[in-house]
Amino acid sequence: MALRIGFLGPIGTYTEEAALLYKPQAELQPFPSIPAVGSAVSSGITERGVVPIENSLEGSVTFTLDLLISQPGLSILNEIVVPIEHYLYAMPGTNPSDVKVIYSHPQALAQCKEYLERCFPSAQQMASLSTVRAVADMRQSNVPAASISPRRAGELNQDVVIIGRDVQDNVNNVTRFVVLASQDHKPTGSDKTSICFSFQETDSSGLLYQALGEFARRKINLLKIESRPTKENLGEYIFLVDCAGHRTDSNVSEVLDNLSAQCRMLKIFGSYPIWSSSAE
Amino acid sequence: MALRIGFLGPIGTYTEEAALLYKPQAELQPFPSIPAVGSAVSSGITERGVVPIENSLEGSVTFTLDLLISQPGLSILNEIVVPIEHYLYAMPGTNPSDVKVIYSHPQALAQCKEYLERCFPSAQQMASLSTVRAVADMRQSNVPAASISPRRAGELNQDVVIIGRDVQDNVNNVTRFVVLASQDHKPTGSDKTSICFSFQETDSSGLLYQALGEFARRKINLLKIESRPTKENLGEYIFLVDCAGHRTDSNVSEVLDNLSAQCRMLKIFGSYPIWSSSAE
Repeated sequence: MALRIGFLGPIGTYTEEAALLYKPQAELQPFPSIPAVGSAVSSGITERGVVPIENSLEGSVTFTLDLLISQPGLSILNEIVVPIEHYLYAMPGTNPSDVKVIYSHPQALAQCKEYLERCFPSAQQMASLSTVRAVADMRQSNVPAASISPRRAGELNQDVVIIGRDVQDNVNNVTRFVVLASQDHKPTGSDKTSICFSFQETDSSGLLYQALGEFARRKINLLKIESRPTKENLGEYIFLVDCAGHRTDSNVSEVLDNLSAQCRMLKIFGSYPIWSSSAE
Repeated sequence: MALRIGFLGPIGTYTEEAALLYKPQAELQPFPSIPAVGSAVSSGITERGVVPIENSLEGSVTFTLDLLISQPGLSILNEIVVPIEHYLYAMPGTNPSDVKVIYSHPQALAQCKEYLERCFPSAQQMASLSTVRAVADMRQSNVPAASISPRRAGELNQDVVIIGRDVQDNVNNVTRFVVLASQDHKPTGSDKTSICFSFQETDSSGLLYQALGEFARRKINLLKIESRPTKENLGEYIFLVDCAGHRTDSNVSEVLDNLSAQCRMLKIFGSYPIWSSSAE
């Protein structure tokens, strides 16, 4: 039986693209939200789940961070890095110079701002609920319209045509996805470890400094540091750290033991291979 | 002439509520986006601008952080903290038990998840582009509908009635807003300072640790630490720090001098009074 992978839908999104890149032969199943993908994995409906965690322009996907923090039984098994390439679609026969309205998710419109000002200075920009939904909004428009959507959305809607490729302003637009599973990955020699922790006291100035010292003293590289609200009081945070190495490496394991003694809460999301396009 | 304050519109949002709380007598002007509020202030269209920067449940408002990082000529003059209270609205005569559809922004629907499951288990939840727009979506519905919207949205739409008050699941739902201006605030004795910085090298493990040491050694409390992508390469970050004290205090001023020598970029967003509901 094929491996079942849940992903943040709908079909046609960049998340589906990531899941296809990760396991082209798997049985993919869309879920309506990031928490729903998490529940599918932790309850066994699917064996794995693919969700976005970070974009090079927008930053962290907070729903995914909050899911990892709060939901028991979820580990990170892998990461996948996918370049984000926005396409401009229209109905066949549409003359680009006639386009009056351009639909997309507000984030995608923002990422194509300069392109749209340059090439479609008089077109009205309309917000859609997703870049995939934008195709449907464009199709129903009464005036000549276009949509900014992923490549896959065009493959899945064969009645629309591409009128622009790679229309995003910044070429460094890349999204990192994580594969959620019931356990993390065995060591490969090129791994990273993701954790979160919080402190007993609100004033975490010296405390965070001490915690980072555990990494610095062992010359363990921090790949990422991020904070999320505890959701209890404004100004109280949970810190999320990615560091180089596997949690079973002796120096990383020492850091985790020491942090666990200093922190109110320490959760290890998992150790997994650093993405390279040729790896699993 | 009244003080002109730009704010993130439309009229009826929590941001308008914050601006009214800050300066009830000012002339308020809505702008369609956070960057537009920033441009209004830096170009002098309005003297001040009010935008959300952080919510106790959702975390940072990244558009505001990115605006402060990238736009010259903007300082933080004040902060305002407002409790977020969601209301449930319907058309007059609607029986709550008949409600089939509930409109709101997906974030507000998520914040009222348990309430909706408990009180409206069979109602369909529909995404609107904003909590204010949800009122219009509700009004146009063909079936009995409700919307989750701010209190102000009800005051401004007098044809709708309140069928539920304070319907959010978590009572600790608070948003912090900042007042943008061309300069920051003079010392008051109870101030905070907001800055951002980044390093020359990608691997910022030891570097961030050293930077935080500048604060820790002087026992300056860190109130917040956050990271944002540099938008150049995945894995390169700009760190944002709020610390206690005014930038003109001798110990804070020393930290800023030392950081400036260690960092590729250091930007001081400003020093301003810590919010207390009785202060300016």
